[in-house]
Amino acid sequence: MTSLDLLTHELSKLPGVGNKTALRLALFITRQPAQYALSLAKALTEVTSKIRFCSVCFHLTDQELCSVCTNPMRDHKILCVVEESSDLMALEKTKIYRGRYHVLQGALSPLDGIGPDNLRVKELIQRLRSEPVEEIILATSPNVTGDATALYVSKLIKPLGLRMTKLASGLPVGGDIQYADPVTLSRAFEHRMEY
Amino acid sequence: MTSLDLLTHELSKLPGVGNKTALRLALFITRQPAQYALSLAKALTEVTSKIRFCSVCFHLTDQELCSVCTNPMRDHKILCVVEESSDLMALEKTKIYRGRYHVLQGALSPLDGIGPDNLRVKELIQRLRSEPVEEIILATSPNVTGDATALYVSKLIKPLGLRMTKLASGLPVGGDIQYADPVTLSRAFEHRMEY
Repeated sequence: MTSLDLLTHELSKLPGVGNKTALRLALFITRQPAQYALSLAKALTEVTSKIRFCSVCFHLTDQELCSVCTNPMRDHKILCVVEESSDLMALEKTKIYRGRYHVLQGALSPLDGIGPDNLRVKELIQRLRSEPVEEIILATSPNVTGDATALYVSKLIKPLGLRMTKLASGLPVGGDIQYADPVTLSRAFEHRMEY
Repeated sequence: MTSLDLLTHELSKLPGVGNKTALRLALFITRQPAQYALSLAKALTEVTSKIRFCSVCFHLTDQELCSVCTNPMRDHKILCVVEESSDLMALEKTKIYRGRYHVLQGALSPLDGIGPDNLRVKELIQRLRSEPVEEIILATSPNVTGDATALYVSKLIKPLGLRMTKLASGLPVGGDIQYADPVTLSRAFEHRMEY
């Protein structure tokens, strides 16, 4: 196995990267100055040694606490519950939310063997008992596993008597009514607002 | 910049990988056992130190000579001229060709500033003078730059009086006549064969 075959083989393990794409990427890398492959290799090595979960919210971070949890400007009264770190990053990009997060690290999915014990639910309940949270936003994805997760979490939280909200569902901005699916359209009707 | 941001940034330099895909790949990598990132990093480092061009045919290799040039079973009388190492690999997969190759390392493309001096044409002529080649297959891609390259090379080789051939053009196997482009269909008519 040549070094090119080996690189192609390793790249083909990435999601959405088949053998042909892996070869194309590997050939691209061989055409670049060696500096590129070396800095990518360094980034890979660093990520394995540095990355870990924030000990409070379980977001990915290089430190003991993530950048949201260490930010003194963030509102401790609102907690947004998300499935994955990638959801947190997408929400952070909007710059509209100033509270803190809790990353469940997945969604309930019995078929994939993911039950409540695989999620950071226990840790969420503990936080709600020790932190001055007044509102919980259940920001799981609006799909089967996300909705099931929100339902499960909401039942656990209910006894605590906090305000519980979820993200609005309706037509995506920039979307086209004719291409929207019937369920999204029904939701948009149900939750229509005063103009 | 966290280690995750850095990895995402480096991955986004790959062709066809935008910021979102880069983040998805980076998150995938953090979810794998550290072993994966480390072996990908090793493969990247190795490729930069080992990969080079075969000193005879200019195919990518880890050695002084590539696996085709060192194979004593390959026919020295036929030489297949290709644009890129990736073309050579695609042809090798068919297992139908038993001759040797010459990789031009590109195609003539004046708009991109690629002229004859940027290709391994001089080296090809030298090989034809010193090796017992009887037939040249011009296997450049059937597009504008590939055809221009084949034409240029064929004019240089003509005085040597060798047999010169090119790959058949026609309908791709498994293709659908209704989706074939008019030029391919015309070629398929012109070069039709006895049934």
